[in-house]
Amino acid sequence: MKEFDTISAIATNLGESGVSIIRISGDKSLQIVSSIFEGKNGRKLDDIKTYTMRYGHIVDKDTREKLDEVIVSYMKGPRSFTAEDTLEINCHGGVVVTRRILEEVVKAGARLADPGEFTKRAFLNGRIDLSQAEAVIDIINAKTELSMRSALEQSEGKISKEINVIRNKLLEIIAHIEATVDYPEDDLEEVTADKSRDDIEKLLKEVEVLLRSADEGKILREGLSTVIVGKPNVGKSSLLNALLMETRAIVTDVPGTTRDVIEEYMNIDGIPVKVTDTAGIRETEDIVEKIGVERSREKIENADLVVLVLDISRELSDEDKEIIEFIKNKKYVVLLNKSDLDGKIDKNDIKELDSEYIIEISAKTGEGIMEFKNIVKELFFSGEIESKDVMVTNTRHKEALIRAKESLIAANEVLYNTFAIDLASIDLRNAWKNLGEITGDTVEEDIIDKIFSKFCLGK
Amino acid sequence: MKEFDTISAIATNLGESGVSIIRISGDKSLQIVSSIFEGKNGRKLDDIKTYTMRYGHIVDKDTREKLDEVIVSYMKGPRSFTAEDTLEINCHGGVVVTRRILEEVVKAGARLADPGEFTKRAFLNGRIDLSQAEAVIDIINAKTELSMRSALEQSEGKISKEINVIRNKLLEIIAHIEATVDYPEDDLEEVTADKSRDDIEKLLKEVEVLLRSADEGKILREGLSTVIVGKPNVGKSSLLNALLMETRAIVTDVPGTTRDVIEEYMNIDGIPVKVTDTAGIRETEDIVEKIGVERSREKIENADLVVLVLDISRELSDEDKEIIEFIKNKKYVVLLNKSDLDGKIDKNDIKELDSEYIIEISAKTGEGIMEFKNIVKELFFSGEIESKDVMVTNTRHKEALIRAKESLIAANEVLYNTFAIDLASIDLRNAWKNLGEITGDTVEEDIIDKIFSKFCLGK
Repeated sequence: MKEFDTISAIATNLGESGVSIIRISGDKSLQIVSSIFEGKNGRKLDDIKTYTMRYGHIVDKDTREKLDEVIVSYMKGPRSFTAEDTLEINCHGGVVVTRRILEEVVKAGARLADPGEFTKRAFLNGRIDLSQAEAVIDIINAKTELSMRSALEQSEGKISKEINVIRNKLLEIIAHIEATVDYPEDDLEEVTADKSRDDIEKLLKEVEVLLRSADEGKILREGLSTVIVGKPNVGKSSLLNALLMETRAIVTDVPGTTRDVIEEYMNIDGIPVKVTDTAGIRETEDIVEKIGVERSREKIENADLVVLVLDISRELSDEDKEIIEFIKNKKYVVLLNKSDLDGKIDKNDIKELDSEYIIEISAKTGEGIMEFKNIVKELFFSGEIESKDVMVTNTRHKEALIRAKESLIAANEVLYNTFAIDLASIDLRNAWKNLGEITGDTVEEDIIDKIFSKFCLGK
Repeated sequence: MKEFDTISAIATNLGESGVSIIRISGDKSLQIVSSIFEGKNGRKLDDIKTYTMRYGHIVDKDTREKLDEVIVSYMKGPRSFTAEDTLEINCHGGVVVTRRILEEVVKAGARLADPGEFTKRAFLNGRIDLSQAEAVIDIINAKTELSMRSALEQSEGKISKEINVIRNKLLEIIAHIEATVDYPEDDLEEVTADKSRDDIEKLLKEVEVLLRSADEGKILREGLSTVIVGKPNVGKSSLLNALLMETRAIVTDVPGTTRDVIEEYMNIDGIPVKVTDTAGIRETEDIVEKIGVERSREKIENADLVVLVLDISRELSDEDKEIIEFIKNKKYVVLLNKSDLDGKIDKNDIKELDSEYIIEISAKTGEGIMEFKNIVKELFFSGEIESKDVMVTNTRHKEALIRAKESLIAANEVLYNTFAIDLASIDLRNAWKNLGEITGDTVEEDIIDKIFSKFCLGK
């Protein structure tokens, strides 16, 4: 285990609540908490055993004034989250009291942890690999139970196991090739090349299976990015409300979402669908409108799915037509809203659009909402997600797999064309390295830093 | 200990974070968590010892599918927060995963806890008294360190101790009186009446000392309610920003604050000052303006302190004068803002106001801000808060003390006027009962329900 300083952070979400936790990890964690802890009848923490708790007070280090009534728990390394000595102070869930205790822990010798630093230590100390570490944040951010389970599986090493199997097979091929190169007198190049090609083909198939899971996996992790567009008063907000009412496990008020674009997550049979309502972009003043339109365009460009809402009870305006023109090369669904009113829309105006994805709905009565949801599912998912064995959910993993695939293809081309098995072995080593980036075996330090900087504080 | 069912709730603030806690309390808590827990190597929870933790997974009760990696801790009653068997499930801090585990706990036999129900059980089970229970929520809601410490002292029984001393003395007086009444042949009424009067006088003094601490105590608990008023563009928002920048430990984004009235807490030497900026009330449309003005008036009526901001660089308008008229019977401070510009204000217009509380400031340069803060302190605090021994911070306690005081005065009047010591003893019993409402010894059930309903969920 490497040597690190002792770090601390608030591990729970700060806000008025029953309980907060301040986490401390590192060699000096027990010593630090001991110095500001007073147990019942003056009992100290010195003799605390691993995986036990102690009731007492956190006191000001200097004045010994009581700051809060707490329960301290102790997990001795390596059997802890970080694999280091870890203590958790379980205190009252107030904002002031929690911050004050953290302040005292820092005064007593700990350093404030960076975002994700606890998980980073678990990785650097070798308790978990990089894909497992990344899964921790995916569990926390999961928007549906399906996403959560997929992240949990990854956190338990399901992807790493798969990757390691492929990497080991790669190593075998490489070893075989290098043995042949080392003993050229045996004149086995051709035999080795043939055999390697077959083996590489098999590995390529395995990599492709993983890659095929990646598009659905990304949606499972990040949510299907959906944008609702339409001119004012066609019923965008009513549609959003109708959708949210019908779905369960809605996550609103996600920290970090901006206030002028409404983003909500809804859950369609376990698939997290992130809905952006461009109606949230203010449309009153001229300059704001311009920004609003620009942001709408940007949102549309980046969306997995565009939902265009038209008002069936009114004729299409130029504005509607402009929007139709804009979305027609995207994946889209057109909702003809207000189906409870008389239809005045001219269907010729929308004939350029794929009629399969045009549905009449009524946000008011709920008509057509279910059909809309089924189309969303069909558009994106070939089969049942739950039946998938291993799922690549992370874009970084997907990119590494793509590079590995390219290296494998390059190796095979060399073997077909030249029998230059030593050249092929360079490509194979690249593939081996590419795959190692997923588990973190062969990853650069700056990539590690970037990954953990996206974590929340206290994790 | 009474018999209750087993309850559960999320004890931490829900949101994406490192860790969440699901708390379970009651006779069946161990059995319930056992049924959905799988330890390492199939280890169960059956043999878990109190104040220890166990690593494992929470699984779906029926499918046995893993839901999350957790650490479960166990506190056997009566040595727990509720004095009942209590378990805490420490899981990943995601919204979906935390809710899902709570759902599973409920499926396994627990009931969703009401707000404050854990603390209520601690009270009903006799582990803490009512004033201690009330202090728990005060610790959580504390806006400054001074408030937090005062709440902590109350939670450790400082007020109860004081109240119990007074109640015991009362009981002695009552016993003495009743003994005299029971043996009238001794003809001691007059002696007893004299002695009782002296004793009651002493108790009255003690009650008055507590009452005198109540005004400052209330501010310590709830914050000094300050309203900033002034017509548009005099610099209300800049003033608020200048104040907040200069103060430490600012608590913003407090859940539950409404969005159209800006309320911020600032910390002036440990005193929590709640600042309401009426500029937050929208002033654009006519009808809204009307509501805005009404709400401003209401806020002013209920404020401990009104801060009127005038623009020193402009002459007073009718609107300014109207506001001056309105606040002049309140506790106020007048800030002549924009002291960095040329003064055009006519001091005659504000001559009706107490000049002691008129300060020239510049929200822009920060001039006068410190002076303003000193005046706020002086206006409200006779001395140093920290030197106070016991502080009554709770309005309910204050009201009980007022009633106790009235009963004591009534008893003394009877004793002065009539020597009817048996009548006086009724008043004394009332005083004893009034004081018992603070500790919860003599409180009605509906009051208890009301108190705990103000708690947050999971506490």
